[in-house]
Amino acid sequence: MKLNIALLAGDGIGPEVINEAVKVSDAIAKKFNHQITWTPALTGACAIDAVGVPYPDETHEICMKADAVLFGAIGHPKYDNDPSAPVRPEQGLLLMRKKLGLFANVRPTFTFPSLIDNSPLKRERIEGTDLVFLRELTGGIYFGEKGRKDNGDTAFDNCVYTRAEVQRLAKKGFELAMTRSKKLCCVDKANVLETSRLWRETVQAMEKDYPEVTVSYEFVDAVAMRLVQWPNSYDVLITENLFGDILTDEASVISGSMGLMPSASVGEHTSLYEPIHGSYPQATGLNIANPLATILSAAMMFEDAFGLKDEAEAIRAVVNQSLEQGIVTEDLAPKGTKAYKTSEVGDWLVANL
Amino acid sequence: MKLNIALLAGDGIGPEVINEAVKVSDAIAKKFNHQITWTPALTGACAIDAVGVPYPDETHEICMKADAVLFGAIGHPKYDNDPSAPVRPEQGLLLMRKKLGLFANVRPTFTFPSLIDNSPLKRERIEGTDLVFLRELTGGIYFGEKGRKDNGDTAFDNCVYTRAEVQRLAKKGFELAMTRSKKLCCVDKANVLETSRLWRETVQAMEKDYPEVTVSYEFVDAVAMRLVQWPNSYDVLITENLFGDILTDEASVISGSMGLMPSASVGEHTSLYEPIHGSYPQATGLNIANPLATILSAAMMFEDAFGLKDEAEAIRAVVNQSLEQGIVTEDLAPKGTKAYKTSEVGDWLVANL
Ligand SMILES: CC(C)[C@H](C(=O)O)[C@@H](O)C(=O)O
Ligand SMILES: CC(C)[C@H](C(=O)O)[C@@H](O)C(=O)O
Repeated sequence: MKLNIALLAGDGIGPEVINEAVKVSDAIAKKFNHQITWTPALTGACAIDAVGVPYPDETHEICMKADAVLFGAIGHPKYDNDPSAPVRPEQGLLLMRKKLGLFANVRPTFTFPSLIDNSPLKRERIEGTDLVFLRELTGGIYFGEKGRKDNGDTAFDNCVYTRAEVQRLAKKGFELAMTRSKKLCCVDKANVLETSRLWRETVQAMEKDYPEVTVSYEFVDAVAMRLVQWPNSYDVLITENLFGDILTDEASVISGSMGLMPSASVGEHTSLYEPIHGSYPQATGLNIANPLATILSAAMMFEDAFGLKDEAEAIRAVVNQSLEQGIVTEDLAPKGTKAYKTSEVGDWLVANL
Repeated sequence: MKLNIALLAGDGIGPEVINEAVKVSDAIAKKFNHQITWTPALTGACAIDAVGVPYPDETHEICMKADAVLFGAIGHPKYDNDPSAPVRPEQGLLLMRKKLGLFANVRPTFTFPSLIDNSPLKRERIEGTDLVFLRELTGGIYFGEKGRKDNGDTAFDNCVYTRAEVQRLAKKGFELAMTRSKKLCCVDKANVLETSRLWRETVQAMEKDYPEVTVSYEFVDAVAMRLVQWPNSYDVLITENLFGDILTDEASVISGSMGLMPSASVGEHTSLYEPIHGSYPQATGLNIANPLATILSAAMMFEDAFGLKDEAEAIRAVVNQSLEQGIVTEDLAPKGTKAYKTSEVGDWLVANL
């Protein structure tokens, strides 16, 4: 199979972790007889530095032509303390999501038996956790009208959703639930927000099309609690953009394996795969960042974008092996044991595939 | 001293836990020579049942005339599955906050040494946690214009903040930080929202008036993570209404003592004290609910509304004693040990004051 992949390394440790994901993907391609064409493109702070905007048109064209996008991380400390700077890396991220129509962010949280003791939660609370958030990614308060009035003394952000936007996200949620344990939780704040009431009534109306799926409705504040108390009571959760931003990040730390969590953003024109961790500026260039989340994102890409399940499984299997044998970067190496470099982990995976 | 207190027991277990708080408060008043006048009033589902609205004008007048309000809990399952019912208990809560001008919700999270093993977090993560959220309570997306367009197919909620609203909340935050460790964290989403940028610039401009306070700015998604990872790294946090709703609930479960957490809402006309737990309908009338959060809310009332610090300390001391001696309701009683009834806990506290 010919795989045409746009490669957006981004900022900070992005290039380093992407590098290892490319190595592992190329090794898989060789083993399974595929041919990958990687087309690199700029995004984030490095794009601002090079061409003045964080998501250049050229990058957009490359993404649109590709079969899938593999993405590293964006963000640079020089933009951190001034969220009102006229040009910022995050704008590139939001523009990319919108222009590529990536309306569903798929964020799994699961545990690795060998890493469970890294969790801030007690073992009995986190064990068995295997949940997936579907976060709406191109609507809501992120993209509604925003601005100032009264000489700048009043600010507003409008949160808007249409029934069609809710339906297409919820449809993915129901379909995903059908492939798992047939449990779907719709997270909203329907006791306060009109957009949430639209979410709830839309999902309720879709229940009859998926009679096997058991749907529950929970308020976002209650979910923020239960995620810490009984994360293993959840399976598939669907929610709007801002709630998803907060809850998926909360969910990502409970497993103790944040450095390993992959994600996908799927939608109208293409799909994009990225680690959930950030650009980790302090580690840039040190060859110490954990590449596994990006490598597992590549596995998601093989499976979901190309239907190559065996290839994905082969990657996951060798990652598990590396964890069990302690071939890990310093974030995962127990005190007093050897920590491997980013590139050493990638090399080991390639050698053991 | 004469203390004139409005008593809003509310729904579910509200009346039972309020009853114990009244017993303890009366005992304290007797001991310290104060005279409390309690004026009961209806709110919540019980008010809807009695007079058709969840926050009757009569209740509002009683609250306005009182020196402080002690509040139980509201909410009834018959309204739970239909968040778009025309009249709902929560509307009473929102109306009450708005009409009483209760713009700052004070939500401490702290640990009790004897209960630390109830936390879902590992001991080393939660130990030493002692933080306070100040949540803005009368603005933001809760109270902005909301509605439908396009025959109901588009819903919107407007989030609005003025500089003055941010200033009065932030002022309380700075003042509280000055009485504690002089650390203030402003939680926002300034990389996306215009209202958050107003929050951030307003707080930044106030820094010079409190040169001793160290202020940090963190995005809401990052705080949702760190609250689970390193809750004891926080002290005073200020945030807007919706973020506060989610994060204070998340914070409430990490200590393992949710049934004990008190809260205050302060503002223009009066102040209100309430446990953070809900109306716990399943337990209604069974005399099993934990009254300690309400009793500790009464302690907050003595201290903050009336400046009666010794009285507050006396309540806290006897509550600690009851915990240490295991005079606790079933939610806190370890398996195989005796669980006390709601009223027995209150009686024990009164007897041991
Ligand atoms: C960087 C920021 C704009 C972004 C978001 O809020 O969506 C990030 O937090 C994320 O979740 O991908
Ligand atoms: C019941 C609901 C409207 C309320 C809120 O969202 O403010 C509650 O969750 C709270 O935090 O007091």
